[in-house]
Amino acid sequence: MTLHVTTVVGNPKPASRTRKVAELLVEKLLVPGTYDLEVIDLADHTDEIFAWPSEKMSALNARVAESDLAVFASPTYKATYTGLLKAFLDRYPANGLAGVTAIPVHTGADFTHSMGPTFTLSPLLVELGATVPGRGFYLALSQMDQLAEVVDAAASEYAGNLARLARVAAASASPVGA
Amino acid sequence: MTLHVTTVVGNPKPASRTRKVAELLVEKLLVPGTYDLEVIDLADHTDEIFAWPSEKMSALNARVAESDLAVFASPTYKATYTGLLKAFLDRYPANGLAGVTAIPVHTGADFTHSMGPTFTLSPLLVELGATVPGRGFYLALSQMDQLAEVVDAAASEYAGNLARLARVAAASASPVGA
Amino acid sequence: MTLHVTTVVGNPKPASRTRKVAELLVEKLLVPGTYDLEVIDLADHTDEIFAWPSEKMSALNARVAESDLAVFASPTYKATYTGLLKAFLDRYPANGLAGVTAIPVHTGADFTHSMGPTFTLSPLLVELGATVPGRGFYLALSQMDQLAEVVDAAASEYAGNLARLARVAAASASPVGA
Amino acid sequence: MTLHVTTVVGNPKPASRTRKVAELLVEKLLVPGTYDLEVIDLADHTDEIFAWPSEKMSALNARVAESDLAVFASPTYKATYTGLLKAFLDRYPANGLAGVTAIPVHTGADFTHSMGPTFTLSPLLVELGATVPGRGFYLALSQMDQLAEVVDAAASEYAGNLARLARVAAASASPVGA
Repeated sequence: MTLHVTTVVGNPKPASRTRKVAELLVEKLLVPGTYDLEVIDLADHTDEIFAWPSEKMSALNARVAESDLAVFASPTYKATYTGLLKAFLDRYPANGLAGVTAIPVHTGADFTHSMGPTFTLSPLLVELGATVPGRGFYLALSQMDQLAEVVDAAASEYAGNLARLARVAAASASPVGA
Repeated sequence: MTLHVTTVVGNPKPASRTRKVAELLVEKLLVPGTYDLEVIDLADHTDEIFAWPSEKMSALNARVAESDLAVFASPTYKATYTGLLKAFLDRYPANGLAGVTAIPVHTGADFTHSMGPTFTLSPLLVELGATVPGRGFYLALSQMDQLAEVVDAAASEYAGNLARLARVAAASASPVGA
Repeated sequence: MTLHVTTVVGNPKPASRTRKVAELLVEKLLVPGTYDLEVIDLADHTDEIFAWPSEKMSALNARVAESDLAVFASPTYKATYTGLLKAFLDRYPANGLAGVTAIPVHTGADFTHSMGPTFTLSPLLVELGATVPGRGFYLALSQMDQLAEVVDAAASEYAGNLARLARVAAASASPVGA
Repeated sequence: MTLHVTTVVGNPKPASRTRKVAELLVEKLLVPGTYDLEVIDLADHTDEIFAWPSEKMSALNARVAESDLAVFASPTYKATYTGLLKAFLDRYPANGLAGVTAIPVHTGADFTHSMGPTFTLSPLLVELGATVPGRGFYLALSQMDQLAEVVDAAASEYAGNLARLARVAAASASPVGA
C-alpha cells in the first residue's frame, strides 16, 4: 500500500530553501517506492488564500487532510511560523488534520529561534488533530553546507520514534471504528 | 513482549484525582496483560526532589526513561504543569526521555486552561526527547461524573493515532542502530 | 499632547464583532480627547497583504509602529491569532514594534481557548519589541450581552497596571537617547 | 517614596551566576537611592517549598507580591524556567502577583533556548497578574565577559519601555479604586 505524503511550504517566496529542506526530509525518512509525494508551495496560492469559498483551496486542504504524512515547512518569521502557513491552516474546521502524521519544520538564520517548531508550530498542528512523531525540526542556514547529515540525523530520529510508537500501537486496544 | 508503563503524578498532594485519571487512561488505552504499570506519585518524594545526587530519585528517573509509555499527569497550577512535576523532569539530562511515548494529562477546575497540556506540557516532554501521540489530555472537574466516557474517548483517539503512526513506521527507513 | 492609537483587526471578514470589542476597549481605557484613533481592518487589505513591496501596506505598518498604543484584535482560529494578523505582523523587520504599547485581544466561542492572547499573541507582539501592559484580553461570545461590564473591568485593570508601571518608570535611569 | 524591589532566584544551587545577573539588572535599571532590594534565593528554601502551610514561605510570597518591581531569574532547564521557581509561584492564589511589575530572566549555555523567557516565563508571570515591561531577558553564558554591556542595553530598553508606558498611563482613565 502506497502512503500519500504532502509537504506544505509556507514561504511567501516560491521555490525556497525551506521547500528543499522539507522535500529532502521526506526522501530521507521514507523508503523509496513506498509513497507518492505532493508539494504544495503556498507562494503559488497567495491570491486565493483568503478567498471564501474557494474550490482550489478546498482541494488543497483536502489532499493534505487525507495524507498519511504531511511536512509543514516555514521560514521563521517573528520567532514562529509564517502568516501564510497559518492562513492555510485556518481554512480547516476544528480537528481538520485528524489522523495525519505531521512534521513541523522551521528554517532560520541562526539558532536564536530554534524552539519555534517544537513550542509553536507543533502545538498548532496537534490542536488541529495531527500527530507529531517527535521534536519539530529546525535548520539554521549556517547548517546548509552540512544539510544532508543534519537531515539524515533528524530522519533517523523520527524513524526511531515511529518504530517505538508502533510497539505501543501493537498493545493498544483497537479504537472504535478502526 | 510486555510493555513497561509508568505514570508520573505531579500533584503535591498524594493519591489525587489526577492520579486516578492517569491510571484509568492507561487501563483504557492498553490491552490487559500486555503491560506492567508503575505509578510514581511525586507527592511521596518532595523531600528528595531537589537533593543532588539522590539514588532514590535517580532510580525513579531511570525507570520512567526506560518506559515504553509514560503518562505525565498534573493538576493545572497557574495555567500549566506543577513545579513539582517540572522539578522531576529537571533532573534529566538533555534528551533524557528519548524513545519514550508520553501522554501529557492536566486536570483543572473548568475549561479555562484546557490549552495547557497541548501548549505547555507537551512541548516540554518533546524537548526532553519523548514522543506524544496526539493532543494532551485535559479533564475538567465538572466532567468527573462522566469520567469513564471522557477517558474512553481520549484512549480511543490515542489508539487511532498510534495505529496510523504504525503505518508510517512501516514505510520508514530503519534508523541507524535500530 | 495627543496619543496616536491604532487598532488592527485580524478577522478576514470585515466589520466584525472583534473590531467592535477592540474599539470599545480603547474608548473605555483612554480619557476622551487625549487621543486620535485609527482602525485598520485587515479584511480590507487581503489582496495586498502578501505583495512585496507594497506602498499601501508599508504605510499601514508605519502608522501602527508609530502608535503610542495599538490594540491587536483577532478572532480565535485554531486556538490562536489568525494567519491574516500574522501576515501583517510578518511585514515588520525585527523589533519593528519597538516602543509601542500593545494590547492583544482574542474573541472566541467559549473559554476553551482563553489562554490564547496571553500565551500566544502576547509573546509574538513582545518579540516584535512591543510592551504589553498586562494580560491579553479574551472575550467569549457568551459574554456579548455583558460586553460593557467585561470591557470596563479589563480597561480598569490595564489602567491600574499602567499607573503602577509609571511609578517604576519614575525611578528608572533615563534610557540612552530618551 | 521608596520602591520595594525583590529578585527571586530559581536556581537549586545557591549564589548562582543567575542571581548575580538579576541583581545587576536591578542596579542598572533603577536610580540608586530610590529603592530597597531583597534577594530571595530559592535554593535556601527547598526544604519548605512543598510544605503546606508554611509561615516562612507565606512571608516570602507576600513580600514578592507587595513589590513594585520583581525580577524572576532562572537558569534554563529543559528550555524553560526551573521547577523550583515554578513551585514558588505555584504557592500563589490566582492573580497573586497583581500589580507587580515583573522582569523574567533566563540564563543558558548558548542561544538555543533564548525564546524561553519571552515565550514561557513571561506568560506565566502575566497569568499571575504581573505586568512585564517588554521582552524577557536572556543571557547566554558566552556573554559573561561582556556582562555589563549586555545588562546595560537590556536595562536601557526596559527604561525606555517604562517611559513610554508612563505616557499612556497619563491618558488612561483612573482605574476604580486607584
